[in-house]
Amino acid sequence: MNEKILQDNNKVIKRIFNLDTNAYVAGALDTKTKELLGLVASTVLRCDDCVKYHLETCHKEGLSKEEVVEALGIATLVGGTIVIPHLRRAYEYWDELEKL
Amino acid sequence: MNEKILQDNNKVIKRIFNLDTNAYVAGALDTKTKELLGLVASTVLRCDDCVKYHLETCHKEGLSKEEVVEALGIATLVGGTIVIPHLRRAYEYWDELEKL
Amino acid sequence: MNEKILQDNNKVIKRIFNLDTNAYVAGALDTKTKELLGLVASTVLRCDDCVKYHLETCHKEGLSKEEVVEALGIATLVGGTIVIPHLRRAYEYWDELEKL
Amino acid sequence: MNEKILQDNNKVIKRIFNLDTNAYVAGALDTKTKELLGLVASTVLRCDDCVKYHLETCHKEGLSKEEVVEALGIATLVGGTIVIPHLRRAYEYWDELEKL
Amino acid sequence: MNEKILQDNNKVIKRIFNLDTNAYVAGALDTKTKELLGLVASTVLRCDDCVKYHLETCHKEGLSKEEVVEALGIATLVGGTIVIPHLRRAYEYWDELEKL
Amino acid sequence: MNEKILQDNNKVIKRIFNLDTNAYVAGALDTKTKELLGLVASTVLRCDDCVKYHLETCHKEGLSKEEVVEALGIATLVGGTIVIPHLRRAYEYWDELEKL
Repeated sequence: MNEKILQDNNKVIKRIFNLDTNAYVAGALDTKTKELLGLVASTVLRCDDCVKYHLETCHKEGLSKEEVVEALGIATLVGGTIVIPHLRRAYEYWDELEKL
Repeated sequence: MNEKILQDNNKVIKRIFNLDTNAYVAGALDTKTKELLGLVASTVLRCDDCVKYHLETCHKEGLSKEEVVEALGIATLVGGTIVIPHLRRAYEYWDELEKL
Repeated sequence: MNEKILQDNNKVIKRIFNLDTNAYVAGALDTKTKELLGLVASTVLRCDDCVKYHLETCHKEGLSKEEVVEALGIATLVGGTIVIPHLRRAYEYWDELEKL
Repeated sequence: MNEKILQDNNKVIKRIFNLDTNAYVAGALDTKTKELLGLVASTVLRCDDCVKYHLETCHKEGLSKEEVVEALGIATLVGGTIVIPHLRRAYEYWDELEKL
Repeated sequence: MNEKILQDNNKVIKRIFNLDTNAYVAGALDTKTKELLGLVASTVLRCDDCVKYHLETCHKEGLSKEEVVEALGIATLVGGTIVIPHLRRAYEYWDELEKL
Repeated sequence: MNEKILQDNNKVIKRIFNLDTNAYVAGALDTKTKELLGLVASTVLRCDDCVKYHLETCHKEGLSKEEVVEALGIATLVGGTIVIPHLRRAYEYWDELEKL
């Protein structure tokens, strides 16, 4: 689907997609930290697809379950119990990732 | 004001305040990372008072401006241009903190 | 200001204002309960002006501080620590109302 | 799933789960009122799983359809037409609960 | 489902449904512009059902894909990358509409 | 303040600022329509600074009060009564702009 959107050639959308790739490259902060930041932002804004995406990259970057869960704990505290259903789905998805 | 709220002795509110103190203590993740997570969560949810609070703790923990700005950059990308006014106020407040 | 908006004669806006008055009239639920519902909705959506308005009506309807604080506690739990700055301002405003 | 999350032993998450059980116990406000507050908070924040959960407890506590619908009406007014799809699903779910 | 909700005869909910029909009728702004406004509002608030509804009316009103995509681009910029999963589903749905 | 942020040379933030300028340039949609889209997005996301900014550009582009108010009416309907305090401030600011 992303390809289709990018072929479509809308400048604003294309650049946002590019930025999204660039923003998580190591700089003053390393990639692990940046992925956790993306994960927490996605969780408090309650976007399951975004949470999944960041869990995948967190897993690829070698973050441990403990680290990911502490990040999700902060997200649940800041975002409230309204975050809990997303937390549940994040746990399930992380379990799937660990089984791969 | 916090004292007044805590004297008031409402259990739910008191425990949330306690949790808030505990959540940022070093564990699998160090305090610096946790403070950045709190900062990004506060920024995408656009809570100026919370942003200020986490900027203060980031500053105390010795995080550099570059690190803080990269975290704020991710928050602005994930949260959209609607975050920009809060970004501006975050910059201003960080400048104040550096002058102290 | 409301008068100016209503004179302006935009149908959609006028009817929303009317609905807002009607929604809190006693029906299957009494006015006290409805005001608490409005208060909690305003608090989790973090609208200080709306919180103030519902605190005023709660006060007029004779709700006690304990009742109001329990409602605010649920709002803070559901909405997360991001609600705390609004909780603080709600406490301050309630104190002002009690002094009148 | 909750069991799995709780076994995981993350303090922050565990305590938020505990708080969530405690917050709806009768105090200055009775359980019925508290459940309606939880329902409205969940509805304006547009969390279908949370809405379902509170509809179940509202049903168990013996709240009538008229009471629940008035609460949902306030939520729709405060939260806007963006709430309507969640309102639809809430109606459907309540109908299912009444058929049990 | 709407019929069932409307038969239910809750005044507040009924009037919000009526208002929703009236708000998009041509006035100072034409219907095309109003539908785009509804689309962007629904997109930044990330309500897939609402986005679908407005894409349907945009399609019926004869808006072109380019116009719709520019509106969605603004929504993605203002609302942030958190909007992207909804953008993807909007593209898919528009493709379906064009195939009818 | 913007200058300071841009001098700071954080790539992600700089590009978001650039995109924000580009997104409202005429394309398939004219600038007037795009400004109204930005206004409605800002209003339902309840960002007063963003609303002010778009009111200024709407005023410069020659949009009439009737057009702006119809857009704000849609925003209030979609976003709910929680938008009303922002609507009030938008009216006040538009009045100021008309007096200049």
